[in-house]
Amino acid sequence: MTRLCRTFQTAPAAVPRDNSAKFLDSGLTSEGFSTPDWLVPDIEDGTAPSMKAEAVDNIVDRLPDHAPDFAGEILPRVEWAYDDPEFRDRGTEQVHRLASEVGEHLDGIVFPKVGRVEDVREAAGMLAEAEREAGLDDGALDMAIILETAPARSDLGEICAFAADSRLAGLVFGPVDYTAELGGRALHGERPRWDGLLEALSNETSAAGVVAIGGPFDQLFHERAGVTYYNAEGYADQVEHEATIGIDGSWSLHPKQTAQANRIHMPSTDELDRDLTKIEAFNEAKREGTGAVVVEGQMVDEATYKNFANTVLQVRAIDETHPAQTGEFYDADLLERALSVELVFN
Amino acid sequence: MTRLCRTFQTAPAAVPRDNSAKFLDSGLTSEGFSTPDWLVPDIEDGTAPSMKAEAVDNIVDRLPDHAPDFAGEILPRVEWAYDDPEFRDRGTEQVHRLASEVGEHLDGIVFPKVGRVEDVREAAGMLAEAEREAGLDDGALDMAIILETAPARSDLGEICAFAADSRLAGLVFGPVDYTAELGGRALHGERPRWDGLLEALSNETSAAGVVAIGGPFDQLFHERAGVTYYNAEGYADQVEHEATIGIDGSWSLHPKQTAQANRIHMPSTDELDRDLTKIEAFNEAKREGTGAVVVEGQMVDEATYKNFANTVLQVRAIDETHPAQTGEFYDADLLERALSVELVFN
Amino acid sequence: MTRLCRTFQTAPAAVPRDNSAKFLDSGLTSEGFSTPDWLVPDIEDGTAPSMKAEAVDNIVDRLPDHAPDFAGEILPRVEWAYDDPEFRDRGTEQVHRLASEVGEHLDGIVFPKVGRVEDVREAAGMLAEAEREAGLDDGALDMAIILETAPARSDLGEICAFAADSRLAGLVFGPVDYTAELGGRALHGERPRWDGLLEALSNETSAAGVVAIGGPFDQLFHERAGVTYYNAEGYADQVEHEATIGIDGSWSLHPKQTAQANRIHMPSTDELDRDLTKIEAFNEAKREGTGAVVVEGQMVDEATYKNFANTVLQVRAIDETHPAQTGEFYDADLLERALSVELVFN
Repeated sequence: MTRLCRTFQTAPAAVPRDNSAKFLDSGLTSEGFSTPDWLVPDIEDGTAPSMKAEAVDNIVDRLPDHAPDFAGEILPRVEWAYDDPEFRDRGTEQVHRLASEVGEHLDGIVFPKVGRVEDVREAAGMLAEAEREAGLDDGALDMAIILETAPARSDLGEICAFAADSRLAGLVFGPVDYTAELGGRALHGERPRWDGLLEALSNETSAAGVVAIGGPFDQLFHERAGVTYYNAEGYADQVEHEATIGIDGSWSLHPKQTAQANRIHMPSTDELDRDLTKIEAFNEAKREGTGAVVVEGQMVDEATYKNFANTVLQVRAIDETHPAQTGEFYDADLLERALSVELVFN
Repeated sequence: MTRLCRTFQTAPAAVPRDNSAKFLDSGLTSEGFSTPDWLVPDIEDGTAPSMKAEAVDNIVDRLPDHAPDFAGEILPRVEWAYDDPEFRDRGTEQVHRLASEVGEHLDGIVFPKVGRVEDVREAAGMLAEAEREAGLDDGALDMAIILETAPARSDLGEICAFAADSRLAGLVFGPVDYTAELGGRALHGERPRWDGLLEALSNETSAAGVVAIGGPFDQLFHERAGVTYYNAEGYADQVEHEATIGIDGSWSLHPKQTAQANRIHMPSTDELDRDLTKIEAFNEAKREGTGAVVVEGQMVDEATYKNFANTVLQVRAIDETHPAQTGEFYDADLLERALSVELVFN
Repeated sequence: MTRLCRTFQTAPAAVPRDNSAKFLDSGLTSEGFSTPDWLVPDIEDGTAPSMKAEAVDNIVDRLPDHAPDFAGEILPRVEWAYDDPEFRDRGTEQVHRLASEVGEHLDGIVFPKVGRVEDVREAAGMLAEAEREAGLDDGALDMAIILETAPARSDLGEICAFAADSRLAGLVFGPVDYTAELGGRALHGERPRWDGLLEALSNETSAAGVVAIGGPFDQLFHERAGVTYYNAEGYADQVEHEATIGIDGSWSLHPKQTAQANRIHMPSTDELDRDLTKIEAFNEAKREGTGAVVVEGQMVDEATYKNFANTVLQVRAIDETHPAQTGEFYDADLLERALSVELVFN
């Protein structure tokens, strides 16, 4: 099991409203299933060029009050671009200021538009330098990157090998920039899903023991017959697909998306009950000397067993950090079975 | 054309029955289309922890009697795991005992849960050592691996480059362990198919000239209205998909699956007739100086020709080792055309 | 934006007709949307073994007359094969003769069946040598390769890294040879689409800044109730899929295919109008200090903006080399908006 990150919610750190920190405040004070596991105050694409400075000000201003009570982790997204030194200069300045002024409230920094592995190393080195200057412990600040350029995809294996031995703790898919970089087109209204990339992302992050996060779903609202409504179906379909292929968490652009993705990346009651039943039957079969057993038409052996065990381990991880969520979601008996069942691997 | 392996049938080498070698015996004495091209007596996940020793005993006991008359190849699966030395120690012991006691009846050894290419080299080195100690010829024992961990998938290219120059003769997909390792979930009752991995597996094994085998299909039985029946449709769909993308053979968990996969990886009568007709037309066209010809709406040139030739070459390979199967499957005229048509590449 | 290549039309350079250069002549004198961006006189699979010499003669004979007025680029396909020195010897002879006799009318050479990156380097070195002997400027002749073997697919990353620093300017998928090499089968009448390869091809060529071209569609004609007709639907479906995933251009086997693919790889009127509208709205929003804006239910930010900008850039590239095509395709107001809209990245 890797670190818990069911949800990666970006919140523009400055918007042209009376309260320019409106979305940042809302993220930092969210409750229950609307609290993202990772909150990402966004200084990059979500914030207009003219408001970047105010975005950093807002983060510096709000974190001391709200970060201590926030249940998840906080990793601002700064500016960066492998192919443009101006972006890297601005990002360097943003990182240094954040580290020195609110470093103790941060869990890490998110870097967009990284290129080949050398560029990822450069970002990591800069972050280490900022950490040191701010007087923080070595490794206090983790790092996540957005995988959204052709050279980064080309170097995915090398980047994840670097992640296995460094502060790089998560890779997040950025499909919109990625599609633009490859020259893809939404010919029938939808961008491609980039299945090959997602499968490779799931594999390489698993090999490195770091977190994989899917891309944002930007068709937030639908309109029909004059009524505009939240597109819950479309987002849930994407998040379910990500969960199916072992992407650990999903990008959220809105508290409603966070509330959905937190639940989807949490085993359902049926799933938990089904997998517990198979674990219990196999534990029994092993005691009787059988290496495999058929439960409801499906063969259960050591290999399938590991999949059922993952379900239980995820429930335990959520229960540890968010007991209110597991308490609300499962009935007490089922949760007790999940917390107490013996998991035997041999 | 690589070595013939339409079917890779695992048989638990010890089960808690009156005859603990029941499935091993059944595999070794199978006949006709139920005989797997590769029979894999399973000491690993198919056999309970308490029966591993008896599993090795059974193989040592049965092979001298049955192996000489068995039409396919025999490669036991031992214990192994890149991330656990206990498994490697037990696997090493199993390999040494098998090589020394029944080495002359074995075609190779199957290693599960290998990791990066260094781990595959380690297993190969251990096998070479056991082969030497047993007094067998150098290279007498081939090796196949189950591709079912994130680091092995990450190193697939390097592993196949090693295969091109070593005793590593086959790669077999293990989707259940693989899905568990990536943290994938059967959210709607089915695990992902891992299309990207399968395509890469087909490519890299072809580049190395070694065999590629698909993963097991464990939904063996269906139940409807109180009747449980063999799931022939589901398995055939999977095997046909594997054949389509150039996976050479399929994993079988049951003699019925073996009987199906042996036939699916054998060109059908219609397919053979269709491809022979196109080969004959193109041979004629080339004699007349045409580089491409349209047969039934499809352009035939040197490139399509190679695909049609593959059909004929597969029939010839099966005919060589299993003439009873080709004799039963094709009418005499069609088989004669396949055996005698001239294949011209230039 | 990479070099414009919406269409890669192969034309057999010698066929057994009264005029053996019939298809070559037709390609060189095509007009309007039937003119391919890249015309590929084919000495390889489209030309019968007995007519290879005449194929070279035809190219040498026709280019001086027609090449100067041809609107696209001209890159003959010669013989080559990573696994057969006879093909490389014949290809070497063909390249030397073409470079020395009509080098000034050529834009490059297409090499089929290349293998690992060393083989691609060998072809490039031979071409450089022929170029020098012919007295042409260094780099006068570009090079494209057909990606159609397992070792070339295995080395795709390395080959594209080579492309970034060399005369290798394009990679073209060859699905028929590729399927034969992997041993794939058209079990239900269709070869696999090789989605993983296409996605990797789009990514690696983008990272290298070179052109990616899809494979040929050889089901040229359909027959129903006694009438044979051009299969416009099937080809358009394939080309649209290629455009969706960022494959820059499509292979054409026929002037009708060229006419279709040139249009599909050109933004439609609706697409251009839609993307211009979003660009204009976002330009406006940025002036007002907003980093993201919702237009018709879709969030527009810097990342989506780049996709819309691609649409405009493609129109401008076509307008520059084929103003007659843009003039015919778009109404004057829309084209003017595309040519004059400000594209702001920051």
